[in-house]
Amino acid sequence: MAAEAEARLPKAAFDYYAGGSGTEWTLAENERAFRRWVFRRRVLVDVSEVDTAVTVLGQRLPFPVLLAPVALQRMAHAEGELATARAAAEAGTTMILSTLSSTTIEDVAATGVDRWFQLYVHRDRGLTGELIDRAVASGYRALVLTVDTPQLGRRDRDERNGFLPPPGVDLAILTSTTGGLSQQTGAGGGSSLFAYFARQCDPSVTWADVEWVRSRAQLPVVLKGVTTAEDARRAADAGVAAVSVSNHGGRQLDGDPATIDALPEVADEVGDRLDVLVDGGVRRGTDVLCALALGAKAVLIGRPQLWGLACGGQAGVGRVLDLLRMDFTLAMRLAGVTSTAAIGRSLVRRAVP
Amino acid sequence: MAAEAEARLPKAAFDYYAGGSGTEWTLAENERAFRRWVFRRRVLVDVSEVDTAVTVLGQRLPFPVLLAPVALQRMAHAEGELATARAAAEAGTTMILSTLSSTTIEDVAATGVDRWFQLYVHRDRGLTGELIDRAVASGYRALVLTVDTPQLGRRDRDERNGFLPPPGVDLAILTSTTGGLSQQTGAGGGSSLFAYFARQCDPSVTWADVEWVRSRAQLPVVLKGVTTAEDARRAADAGVAAVSVSNHGGRQLDGDPATIDALPEVADEVGDRLDVLVDGGVRRGTDVLCALALGAKAVLIGRPQLWGLACGGQAGVGRVLDLLRMDFTLAMRLAGVTSTAAIGRSLVRRAVP
Amino acid sequence: MAAEAEARLPKAAFDYYAGGSGTEWTLAENERAFRRWVFRRRVLVDVSEVDTAVTVLGQRLPFPVLLAPVALQRMAHAEGELATARAAAEAGTTMILSTLSSTTIEDVAATGVDRWFQLYVHRDRGLTGELIDRAVASGYRALVLTVDTPQLGRRDRDERNGFLPPPGVDLAILTSTTGGLSQQTGAGGGSSLFAYFARQCDPSVTWADVEWVRSRAQLPVVLKGVTTAEDARRAADAGVAAVSVSNHGGRQLDGDPATIDALPEVADEVGDRLDVLVDGGVRRGTDVLCALALGAKAVLIGRPQLWGLACGGQAGVGRVLDLLRMDFTLAMRLAGVTSTAAIGRSLVRRAVP
Amino acid sequence: MAAEAEARLPKAAFDYYAGGSGTEWTLAENERAFRRWVFRRRVLVDVSEVDTAVTVLGQRLPFPVLLAPVALQRMAHAEGELATARAAAEAGTTMILSTLSSTTIEDVAATGVDRWFQLYVHRDRGLTGELIDRAVASGYRALVLTVDTPQLGRRDRDERNGFLPPPGVDLAILTSTTGGLSQQTGAGGGSSLFAYFARQCDPSVTWADVEWVRSRAQLPVVLKGVTTAEDARRAADAGVAAVSVSNHGGRQLDGDPATIDALPEVADEVGDRLDVLVDGGVRRGTDVLCALALGAKAVLIGRPQLWGLACGGQAGVGRVLDLLRMDFTLAMRLAGVTSTAAIGRSLVRRAVP
Repeated sequence: MAAEAEARLPKAAFDYYAGGSGTEWTLAENERAFRRWVFRRRVLVDVSEVDTAVTVLGQRLPFPVLLAPVALQRMAHAEGELATARAAAEAGTTMILSTLSSTTIEDVAATGVDRWFQLYVHRDRGLTGELIDRAVASGYRALVLTVDTPQLGRRDRDERNGFLPPPGVDLAILTSTTGGLSQQTGAGGGSSLFAYFARQCDPSVTWADVEWVRSRAQLPVVLKGVTTAEDARRAADAGVAAVSVSNHGGRQLDGDPATIDALPEVADEVGDRLDVLVDGGVRRGTDVLCALALGAKAVLIGRPQLWGLACGGQAGVGRVLDLLRMDFTLAMRLAGVTSTAAIGRSLVRRAVP
Repeated sequence: MAAEAEARLPKAAFDYYAGGSGTEWTLAENERAFRRWVFRRRVLVDVSEVDTAVTVLGQRLPFPVLLAPVALQRMAHAEGELATARAAAEAGTTMILSTLSSTTIEDVAATGVDRWFQLYVHRDRGLTGELIDRAVASGYRALVLTVDTPQLGRRDRDERNGFLPPPGVDLAILTSTTGGLSQQTGAGGGSSLFAYFARQCDPSVTWADVEWVRSRAQLPVVLKGVTTAEDARRAADAGVAAVSVSNHGGRQLDGDPATIDALPEVADEVGDRLDVLVDGGVRRGTDVLCALALGAKAVLIGRPQLWGLACGGQAGVGRVLDLLRMDFTLAMRLAGVTSTAAIGRSLVRRAVP
Repeated sequence: MAAEAEARLPKAAFDYYAGGSGTEWTLAENERAFRRWVFRRRVLVDVSEVDTAVTVLGQRLPFPVLLAPVALQRMAHAEGELATARAAAEAGTTMILSTLSSTTIEDVAATGVDRWFQLYVHRDRGLTGELIDRAVASGYRALVLTVDTPQLGRRDRDERNGFLPPPGVDLAILTSTTGGLSQQTGAGGGSSLFAYFARQCDPSVTWADVEWVRSRAQLPVVLKGVTTAEDARRAADAGVAAVSVSNHGGRQLDGDPATIDALPEVADEVGDRLDVLVDGGVRRGTDVLCALALGAKAVLIGRPQLWGLACGGQAGVGRVLDLLRMDFTLAMRLAGVTSTAAIGRSLVRRAVP
Repeated sequence: MAAEAEARLPKAAFDYYAGGSGTEWTLAENERAFRRWVFRRRVLVDVSEVDTAVTVLGQRLPFPVLLAPVALQRMAHAEGELATARAAAEAGTTMILSTLSSTTIEDVAATGVDRWFQLYVHRDRGLTGELIDRAVASGYRALVLTVDTPQLGRRDRDERNGFLPPPGVDLAILTSTTGGLSQQTGAGGGSSLFAYFARQCDPSVTWADVEWVRSRAQLPVVLKGVTTAEDARRAADAGVAAVSVSNHGGRQLDGDPATIDALPEVADEVGDRLDVLVDGGVRRGTDVLCALALGAKAVLIGRPQLWGLACGGQAGVGRVLDLLRMDFTLAMRLAGVTSTAAIGRSLVRRAVP
């Protein structure tokens, strides 16, 4: 579907969605790393009934796939985040709305989708507090604090393209306060988003701010972007409800390990204290199965939802979710497991190099 | 010969035979994995006489290659399974007839080939019992229960092609009872075989059914699709006569290890209790030699017989068998072994990565 | 930028700069090896202020990138080493002038750049002593003795091209004494530089000469080209001030390890006794970060400065330095480190092969 | 030079020289494996004088490269083995004449080259004895018994080409007795050499025959084709003077390890009892250096001499030898070793995978 999306989208938009930082090694590694794990499936198990449900942040999901926060979805389709939200609602899963959404917090909430809000802490803490308050007021169930982005990663494609969303698409939640991307003077000579980030977002965020976010929101906090046991332990000590092992889809620090390779150390360290999620490179049901085997409660998908959105709007996102759910169910059957609770470390081993 | 077969066959038929599930990683890995073993051959051994014979299920085979069960062979050649059977008979080896054969159990038996019958347990256990009874009545010597297919793997090529056999070719053994593939409503929008499987085949088969099959047939039972020591031990405990280490030619769970890499743990676990076979990626005499060194009594070939069938019918299959036998004999000579009994673990080691 | 430089430069000049010796395995390995290390970055660190400065040979550098000695820079741009020197001066970093410079020692000194002088010991020790004296007299702060080049590596590209600089470009420091490259009879049938080296440079240089150089110059001596702990220890014993782990950009012994892979053993051995530098394959800020994590004080860049020079003269070199500094700062931020002193071995681990 | 040779030679001749058996994995692995070793070179060694000489079978060679036995050299150049012999004589090295030579034993001897004779034991032991006697009578200094070829490897290129030398080129030493290749009925449908071998050569040769050869010749015997410590020990016990670690250039058992990877175990086992040689994949001076570091006294080159022969007859072979000698001398210099005696295991280590 990526190929069809590429054909449908303007180059700068596709590149923004598809690209990564630096040499794009981490971007490629995220997918490649799944090929370095193999299954130890079991046979002759009655798999006529397979329970794909999981519980994340205390709430049941019908299958362990959430929609990762993705910026500027109206570049992919006129209905943008609304289409995504409706598809998520229909599939019964959770959508994580990006701070860099091209649709407002309130409009997405109006779709009724189960929703979390992803937060970039801005230098303007008043603005940041308002974002939190708006999310709380609009019924978002959790705050996802992205912690791998004190500054935006340098993405050569966006620099070369002088990335700027097309007219009519901008940061819907932020434009009134910050001017949005169209006001970035850097837009002529580089990525407008890189410039926006440098100017508006706060590189000084620390663990103390996690506590601030938590107390302001009175909601569960999810840290997205953890890759080490050390930070995972610290997150648990800080009382966060979940972490997502993430390298921002290979868009931040090039040289980050593949998330599926970083997952085991995080899950081993804190899997009994909080919910461990993972995102990066998940494309197939077998990837989801592998992630759960290595300790994740669920996965977040990013680019696949975008390709669905670009190719078919709400129906396209819905199809991606349906296919992934079906494919995961099939993977469970073929692996001989009947419930997500039964998916454990013994189901996988390293492939022979 | 694969290239010539591709040129001769309709795309949908070739894709069905050649393709695998998911990313086709396991499909490719099956062949690639043989390149990760190297030989420790010995020199100055008198190899003027080389005995390639093996004993499988108590019966002597002139060389350790059997014909794997392959569905719908009449797509490859008008004579289909009959051509294959006659070639196997002429070569003195065993043919395993697929439940999904395009020729009847009885017609294949009439060729006189040494034969085993591969079984998919259907939801309709009456039908399944009849299949067993027909195989017994027709002189099949063993039942091969495929255990890696509680549901059919998702094969993108077949989904895209809307795979359906051409008019006149269908499941010869099953059409009268189930309607066969041409009656699948899914045929317009996906693989008819995927749809058939979901509707007709039983995902609830367990070890208890192995006992049922065994007692109904009063024949040796072979489990095809085992990849772990745990399942191999359970198979031995259940009294099966043989297992084939298999991932269904990379067509079921993508992410399964290469069979040649899974073989050692199975052979180590149960090699002294039952016959261990292996299938997947065997293309050359050196592959057969490697498989025997790692503990297999014999190998099953799938795609090579099909390419022979597509290119030359009975003569084509015969040529594939002749070449493989000759090539295996040559490999034994060059490795300095004169009998299959002398082929052991010390003949191979891991290649340097 | 390499591609643009290739388009701008005559083939023989580009090949001379870009090529390596033998199979060019080491050349490629230098870059590839960085991909075999991954970061263990930390999150939620206040990275609003990041101190990229390091101290090398007792002097503060604003960021840990020096300009490696590169021969014949006037092939890349009419202003050659002068453009490079001015760009280095503007960036506040150090330029290492090559003995094979196409600009004189004194002219480069006149730019005011912070400068070290790279030395090839010639068979004519009188000439060599004069080179040292001129460097000292012109305010070069250190002597970089290249120790991986007792003879020039055989570079197939240069042999095929019959490498000879274009008219008007030659060894500015050496032509009056040795005749320079244009007088090499080998020029018609091979590389003029290979011939020059064989005739003029001294393959008998030993540790005793290091002492001679040191006492003659009364300057810190840097050994460039060390790759083993044994030689590093010997260098420390000999009182050198720094070593650069180097394989001459893959241009000398093909089969040398990547420098980033040789760095840890050198740093472990002598990191507390002298300054360890590294050069080879550094292209991104993340490469610099990796080098510092593995024990380097700073890195030297070679080809990147040339591509900048070829594409834009002084401004081009300046842009390369600016980008690298910015990219390194960004890498520090994304890795969660705020000072170069905090960059240690725990920041990296081996990637999964 | 391989590319130029390919352009000059008829396809069937080039394929015969260049090709390997089976999947050609071993063929490729021979060269690739050298890239998996890296040097631990030393610096600041006086390498103005480098002694490349070695002693093999008690005789001094100016540099450690011998000419491997290669069949049918008149396909490459009208002067065939005579051109090769003269080039070897001029370079001061040893030529090993193949039993399958297209020039007679006596004609090659007449060139005065230092020479060994390679032997394939024929089923006709009278003929075999005569070959030995002729070699002895013509002053060949050693007999090289090839032990990896009880039957010829199956080489797909030759099978497809129906390999048969062009008119006027045949087995000069054997045609009068056996009819040579032009009399092989297999020539229409496959490789004439494969057919010749199956009919004429003896697959029953054992260690007892080594003793027979040795006593008949009263010359040192070299076993070519050993790859294991076990066979190397047996060779030493049998009193052979040398072994060559060889997989016949990847032309016999596909799946054999690269020779450079098999060398260490052989050298460790018998390096103190006999001369260990190695052949396979040697293309550069660094390859020779690596082979000596891993325990070889010298290497044999096969295909490189052929490309030289095809491109320039005697002068071409001479140029290959000159280049390799120069390149090996250079490699020694760059590695910091001044005599072949000083090249040891500590000079290399495994590359990072």
